[in-house]
Amino acid sequence: MEENCCRTTSRDEAERRRLINRLSRIEGQIRGLKGMLEKDVYCADILNQSAAVSAALNAFNRELLSSHIHSCVVRDIRSGDDSAADELMVVIGKLLK
Amino acid sequence: MEENCCRTTSRDEAERRRLINRLSRIEGQIRGLKGMLEKDVYCADILNQSAAVSAALNAFNRELLSSHIHSCVVRDIRSGDDSAADELMVVIGKLLK
Amino acid sequence: MEENCCRTTSRDEAERRRLINRLSRIEGQIRGLKGMLEKDVYCADILNQSAAVSAALNAFNRELLSSHIHSCVVRDIRSGDDSAADELMVVIGKLLK
Amino acid sequence: MEENCCRTTSRDEAERRRLINRLSRIEGQIRGLKGMLEKDVYCADILNQSAAVSAALNAFNRELLSSHIHSCVVRDIRSGDDSAADELMVVIGKLLK
Repeated sequence: MEENCCRTTSRDEAERRRLINRLSRIEGQIRGLKGMLEKDVYCADILNQSAAVSAALNAFNRELLSSHIHSCVVRDIRSGDDSAADELMVVIGKLLK
Repeated sequence: MEENCCRTTSRDEAERRRLINRLSRIEGQIRGLKGMLEKDVYCADILNQSAAVSAALNAFNRELLSSHIHSCVVRDIRSGDDSAADELMVVIGKLLK
Repeated sequence: MEENCCRTTSRDEAERRRLINRLSRIEGQIRGLKGMLEKDVYCADILNQSAAVSAALNAFNRELLSSHIHSCVVRDIRSGDDSAADELMVVIGKLLK
Repeated sequence: MEENCCRTTSRDEAERRRLINRLSRIEGQIRGLKGMLEKDVYCADILNQSAAVSAALNAFNRELLSSHIHSCVVRDIRSGDDSAADELMVVIGKLLK
């Protein structure tokens, strides 16, 4: 089993908490969007709000990617594992669509 | 108060249900991401999953935007309200970042 | 043949000039990127520059889309042509990937 | 002066040629867009074409980023240069907007 390098120091634990908090806020925003649809709020207002949720999710993706690069990717490349660079590009390719 | 044109026919009610169902699935995916972080799953696997959530949210945005254009925007422009085109560009500008 | 509504007033002619000028600048930036690759400039510097070119092209797309919505789409919807909304969503779908 | 790691082998020279060819095609597409605006082609057709140019530029960015990661970033991290990961995130942050 691949051990997760992202949780080996207390700094990383704080980072993990921050990421989970970001997701909790996004989960709340998604519920807010559902409430807007249920209450039949004007579509353009819902769209403005859902654009904000997309931006929040992109910010989460960037923070997680940064954490991944600074911990796992650096560690794997140092240990001579060349597949880390390939795997990183697969992930980035999905984020860049 | 702006009345919401997106809910005046049974077809629009079905559309609204579809949009809410999309959001419920996305909410579940966000909770899944939180679980992955809690269980300390390998970051690259979380990133692949969160890229899929971003894609699902983009699909929701496109469907809501299409619904908005076909109902509110068409109605407003027909009724001579020129501000509908300006408002639409504000929303699209946010979605295109 | 579809007549182009985007060029019926002097304001639209100014808009068309602005759009062509944007493209001329982007064309110059692309040539600049080729020069950087030929002169073997450090990749990260080329990437920063090509991210700027992508942003410039997105700004062009947004301006052309705004012009299209304010002229052609408004005109077609007013004249009762419902296909304008469908066609608009096809274009937006491509820009939102 | 930073030496460019992206041009140290014949494989990298082939890669550089491919990247320059991509840019030449994009430059031709930009000129094509200008021609469409000059000839007053229907805006929606220009938008479909400019969405294709954005996609081609994104493909160029992904290929250059992959080349950068597999050569410069791997080399710098192996040589103990921690700033490579920071610099990479700056570049990715710009590409992800």
